[in-house]
Amino acid sequence: MKEEKPIAISVIKRLPIYYRVLTKLEQKNIETISSGKLAEKLNTTASQIRQDLNQFGSFGHKGFGYQVSSLKKEIGRILGLEKQKDMILVGAGNLGKAIVNYPNFKRRGFNIKAVFDVDPIIVGQEVNGIIIKDVKLLKDFLENNEIDIAIITTPAESAEKFVDIFVEGRVKAIWNFAPISLNCSDRILVENVHISESLLTLSYMIDKKFN
Amino acid sequence: MKEEKPIAISVIKRLPIYYRVLTKLEQKNIETISSGKLAEKLNTTASQIRQDLNQFGSFGHKGFGYQVSSLKKEIGRILGLEKQKDMILVGAGNLGKAIVNYPNFKRRGFNIKAVFDVDPIIVGQEVNGIIIKDVKLLKDFLENNEIDIAIITTPAESAEKFVDIFVEGRVKAIWNFAPISLNCSDRILVENVHISESLLTLSYMIDKKFN
Repeated sequence: MKEEKPIAISVIKRLPIYYRVLTKLEQKNIETISSGKLAEKLNTTASQIRQDLNQFGSFGHKGFGYQVSSLKKEIGRILGLEKQKDMILVGAGNLGKAIVNYPNFKRRGFNIKAVFDVDPIIVGQEVNGIIIKDVKLLKDFLENNEIDIAIITTPAESAEKFVDIFVEGRVKAIWNFAPISLNCSDRILVENVHISESLLTLSYMIDKKFN
Repeated sequence: MKEEKPIAISVIKRLPIYYRVLTKLEQKNIETISSGKLAEKLNTTASQIRQDLNQFGSFGHKGFGYQVSSLKKEIGRILGLEKQKDMILVGAGNLGKAIVNYPNFKRRGFNIKAVFDVDPIIVGQEVNGIIIKDVKLLKDFLENNEIDIAIITTPAESAEKFVDIFVEGRVKAIWNFAPISLNCSDRILVENVHISESLLTLSYMIDKKFN
């Protein structure tokens, strides 16, 4: 592996897709894959894959394709998956609970350390083995725990007020599911998830295919 | 508007982002926006926006920027949002319930007509005014109702078995949240949502910024 220089965000956004497809291949005990076959599974071209991976060093051997496990491991390393990330979640409604129950986090090194909610009916409930805490305890918790990622699954109205608490609590990044784009300071990273965007894409494709 | 020819999927995937940002600007009563300002809000370049929109006809006037409302309306039209899409959802666990409760669907013309689950405890419950039906009634329902989109929020193991039922029931598209990629026939469109991919991107960015 060569030393890494800053990489275009478009490449970074493709790496998780590579990682997912390689994980699936590994689960099927497939040891090597040609660049053409991998490209097909990724809905892209062999040259795009080569170009993306070349930014991180040299993978694969001309004529032999890629070694599934070692490429997966290397991409995992690039994505930082070998270092555990500690997370908290704020907003334990249906979406929050669904995320806490998501089976693949722990396997990939993402560890949900605590879950918070404002609703006295929800506080004290258990979700995936975690007792939901009162959001009043959030500041204290952040003072005493180093958290990498805060997940926001509150309604849109209340999402913004947590940003300051997270910045103050030295949280490194926000993974935001509230239907509002959070724009934060340079002190914290934000990834806004807009679930419904793929529905709009689907709407376009339906009209093109069936009309 | 010119007659439309097939558009690259990368452009189609950007249109929902344009739509979201324009909706937000409209809500703030902003009537016009320069191409530079819009590009900034979209994290892209003015020339990329111009290039994308030019594929659908001519928008904006040199030197005047874009009219927010009319551009939003036009993009909504391209995305097919002016025609109501009828949907069903299968799998009324936490994620399913969260999606049924999502506030922005109806406003954009997406109408959830029925919700199904296999669990006798969940069947009969109400979510956002809809009584959850037994999944045994799904085939019959599809025979008697024209459905555009079926949302799958079941566990991975059970997602695949619904695909045939949807194809037979002339459902046009599947919006799949089960953590498995569904590969279907030409008779049905599939959009697989991989929520955790943006978390892996975030993991990369954390390691770059804080290490």
